[in-house]
Amino acid sequence: MALRESSLNGKSMITTQELSRDEIMEIIELAEDMQENRFADKYSKVLDQRSFLMFFYNPSVRTRQSFEIAATELGGHGLYIEPGSMRLQQLDKPPEEQGGETIEDVAGVMNRYGAGVGIRMLEDKIDRYGRGDEVLREYDKYLDKPLVSFAHDRFHPCQGLADVMGYRKHVGKDLEDVTIAHVWGHGALARSHCSVQESMLISSRLGMNVRVAHPEGYDLDEEVVEWTKENCKENGGSFDIDHDPVDVYEDADIVYSRNWMSRDAYQDGEFKKEEEIEKALKYTDWICDEEKMKLTDDGLFSHPMPVDRRHEATDEVASGPRSIILDIAENRLHVQKAYMALSMG
Amino acid sequence: MALRESSLNGKSMITTQELSRDEIMEIIELAEDMQENRFADKYSKVLDQRSFLMFFYNPSVRTRQSFEIAATELGGHGLYIEPGSMRLQQLDKPPEEQGGETIEDVAGVMNRYGAGVGIRMLEDKIDRYGRGDEVLREYDKYLDKPLVSFAHDRFHPCQGLADVMGYRKHVGKDLEDVTIAHVWGHGALARSHCSVQESMLISSRLGMNVRVAHPEGYDLDEEVVEWTKENCKENGGSFDIDHDPVDVYEDADIVYSRNWMSRDAYQDGEFKKEEEIEKALKYTDWICDEEKMKLTDDGLFSHPMPVDRRHEATDEVASGPRSIILDIAENRLHVQKAYMALSMG
Amino acid sequence: MALRESSLNGKSMITTQELSRDEIMEIIELAEDMQENRFADKYSKVLDQRSFLMFFYNPSVRTRQSFEIAATELGGHGLYIEPGSMRLQQLDKPPEEQGGETIEDVAGVMNRYGAGVGIRMLEDKIDRYGRGDEVLREYDKYLDKPLVSFAHDRFHPCQGLADVMGYRKHVGKDLEDVTIAHVWGHGALARSHCSVQESMLISSRLGMNVRVAHPEGYDLDEEVVEWTKENCKENGGSFDIDHDPVDVYEDADIVYSRNWMSRDAYQDGEFKKEEEIEKALKYTDWICDEEKMKLTDDGLFSHPMPVDRRHEATDEVASGPRSIILDIAENRLHVQKAYMALSMG
Repeated sequence: MALRESSLNGKSMITTQELSRDEIMEIIELAEDMQENRFADKYSKVLDQRSFLMFFYNPSVRTRQSFEIAATELGGHGLYIEPGSMRLQQLDKPPEEQGGETIEDVAGVMNRYGAGVGIRMLEDKIDRYGRGDEVLREYDKYLDKPLVSFAHDRFHPCQGLADVMGYRKHVGKDLEDVTIAHVWGHGALARSHCSVQESMLISSRLGMNVRVAHPEGYDLDEEVVEWTKENCKENGGSFDIDHDPVDVYEDADIVYSRNWMSRDAYQDGEFKKEEEIEKALKYTDWICDEEKMKLTDDGLFSHPMPVDRRHEATDEVASGPRSIILDIAENRLHVQKAYMALSMG
Repeated sequence: MALRESSLNGKSMITTQELSRDEIMEIIELAEDMQENRFADKYSKVLDQRSFLMFFYNPSVRTRQSFEIAATELGGHGLYIEPGSMRLQQLDKPPEEQGGETIEDVAGVMNRYGAGVGIRMLEDKIDRYGRGDEVLREYDKYLDKPLVSFAHDRFHPCQGLADVMGYRKHVGKDLEDVTIAHVWGHGALARSHCSVQESMLISSRLGMNVRVAHPEGYDLDEEVVEWTKENCKENGGSFDIDHDPVDVYEDADIVYSRNWMSRDAYQDGEFKKEEEIEKALKYTDWICDEEKMKLTDDGLFSHPMPVDRRHEATDEVASGPRSIILDIAENRLHVQKAYMALSMG
Repeated sequence: MALRESSLNGKSMITTQELSRDEIMEIIELAEDMQENRFADKYSKVLDQRSFLMFFYNPSVRTRQSFEIAATELGGHGLYIEPGSMRLQQLDKPPEEQGGETIEDVAGVMNRYGAGVGIRMLEDKIDRYGRGDEVLREYDKYLDKPLVSFAHDRFHPCQGLADVMGYRKHVGKDLEDVTIAHVWGHGALARSHCSVQESMLISSRLGMNVRVAHPEGYDLDEEVVEWTKENCKENGGSFDIDHDPVDVYEDADIVYSRNWMSRDAYQDGEFKKEEEIEKALKYTDWICDEEKMKLTDDGLFSHPMPVDRRHEATDEVASGPRSIILDIAENRLHVQKAYMALSMG
């Protein structure tokens, strides 16, 4: 293991789209070795005495546990911070009307203290789609240390890496020509686009055929759709997008059923959560169930969790024999350890 | 030390009543050695690189500090989680009306990440007596790793172990025929039954004579009372319960004065804290003071802390020479280290 | 390194005024070595297996990160506690009307668990100036282990140490005859006096010339002013205090611009934050800008952060070439590691 020689050394990760294909494979292959040798001595001192700063504007089960444990297993320390306990500048007020701290200053201090920084920012913590991505890039501008997205409005790179690591285990190391169907799910949560968008991007980088289906009004980020098309073209996969809740399952190898909010979720700088949920709950056809799964080619069920059971997918599917959601959740730990080792080790 | 050969390896602990007498003694004797050799090398790597997931539905001073430090002193990491920062299913809403995560899914992920799990759930976080115990057992069903109660409505196994470790130090290793008087205290808090119930159970397992006194309407869990009686019968101790605030002290070796809520504390799914406090504060006779302590056989004062001074006990008693409350609080650390080493090491 | 022989072993630090000059220098010189050898083996086991209890009544960016990382880099563990998650006695209610835990009991348990304790308490967490200092001293009375202030209403010893460590780097090891100008800044926050008061005390201990300027009504603690005068007399520095926002800059070597609340900030046991801010914002002349900095002797800009930019100082000054605020923020880590190693190692 020659971590220091990686091109990832010192590199931030806001989306896998900004990594080279080699860098993506380097992380995944190291993660696979880390899974096999989870507590081996060779990885237990990579972040010795080092502190990783974990900044959660939004709470999270998996992300918090998996990053804090990743730091621990590399011999370091993950420091959990909820900005509610900080006197940061508020995003929704002009700087001259408040005394909170600027991102320049917060990041400037983090540079001195930490080995790297992670940030989660989405849903109600932003005032319009795209704002979280801007804030992360603002932090990154002032940070000398690697910044990694813990999920934000646009992207979720660690989830994407965990997803494909799971597909490599269950489908095979070569994912070319494997078909993944992303299908919108109705639901009692109004979720960000980051997981599904990251999945489209990384799947298409690895030569997979990428399908997307969602009701009208639930369009995804145009730029992400465009990048996915280009990725498919470059790497030999096909790309399809439509509005039918059933056709998308036909002969798919993997089904990725997930709720996401509509284009109207932010209005006048506010996240209209209740309206979004009310609207989404009406699309009762949009659920991944056994009947639809029979149309697939003995397809796997993939989901970034938490699953909104009975909305995004039935219990039968989510807890069924073709569900690989727990394996993928576990992969979060391994890919994050690998990224941290390569970028901060 | 052959931790791996213990029958406790991989075993959950929801109450000491579900451990064998040998397992109880194994924990206590290891804890006594860990106290004597607190930072010895032999214990400093038992949980090396491992993470222990600490789930606090309710806050706590001692439990949080003692478990997080226990993990640290065993070379591991205690990960503090307040479910307020998680999108869990809410207990008081039917699953089909919400999108939060199920216990099956949360536990399924914890299995992949952690070496063990602890949960605290009582008072206002449940909607009726017994509910916390059900939730813990629901988690345990889906967990492959040991689950330990951090105190819940019915039981508090670590407190019980710490209590008897304290009695062994101050009374002698053999607790047979030692008399412990549990006496209800009035107070400005409405407390759960877990500590006193666990004390009754573990004291009676070790052959102690168990007394209980409380005002009418403050009955304890019938099943726990029944188990305690049976334990006494099996192990040679006597069992007495009545409603007199003074008689219970007569010739006792240990007095355990503690407030607990009445049987009416939960009504229509709500914890009626204010009503409980108002009612409890009227029983001003129910306080452990110097005068009553004179009736004992130079009795020790025991309490799981925090003490509601001037209600449960006077300052004179709580800070007096026969108070062993700080020793018992310290024991929490040692018994928890011992349990974690035996079950997760 | 013979940490155990230091007179600081076991010693609390509520203000540097209560340390000897030798002790102050011992901390700073060790901190300078720790900065040069940040991850060296010689310091990596000083707090091995030990836990440091960090008690934040008020939130903080720098203090939390720098102490938790300090503990980590010394091989120990910093345990972050917000008393909101504890059932402590409330300061604003008489003890007989509540059931929360007393400081005697909380500190008694901390003695058993931790290697040391830090406490932060200021602004809205107290009901009058001086109250935070009393609470810290009450904890200290019951603690056998070292107590360190994480900033409270009167003092901020770690900030003072970090400040002078920064001056030694940028001005030279000998600070005698160096002139520091403390100047009040207007602002959208109503800040405690602790940083500026600690700076006055420690600067005057090291023989610096100390100046202070603030609008009328913004007087500092009389006792601190008196001690500063005496320190100056003993150590050969001069002391000046007046109400002019410009004169104070004349030929200064270091400018320390900082907002602090007025003498009327607490009324009827309440912190009148909004009134304070409204009042302070009117003093628009009181800002550290390039024009005033030109009056200095190529002066350095010092500030304990977070900077209230556009109020306390302009962006030009705060981010300018003579600003040493990030170096000073970094020093927090090093002086805290040094103090912890000497007092708890």
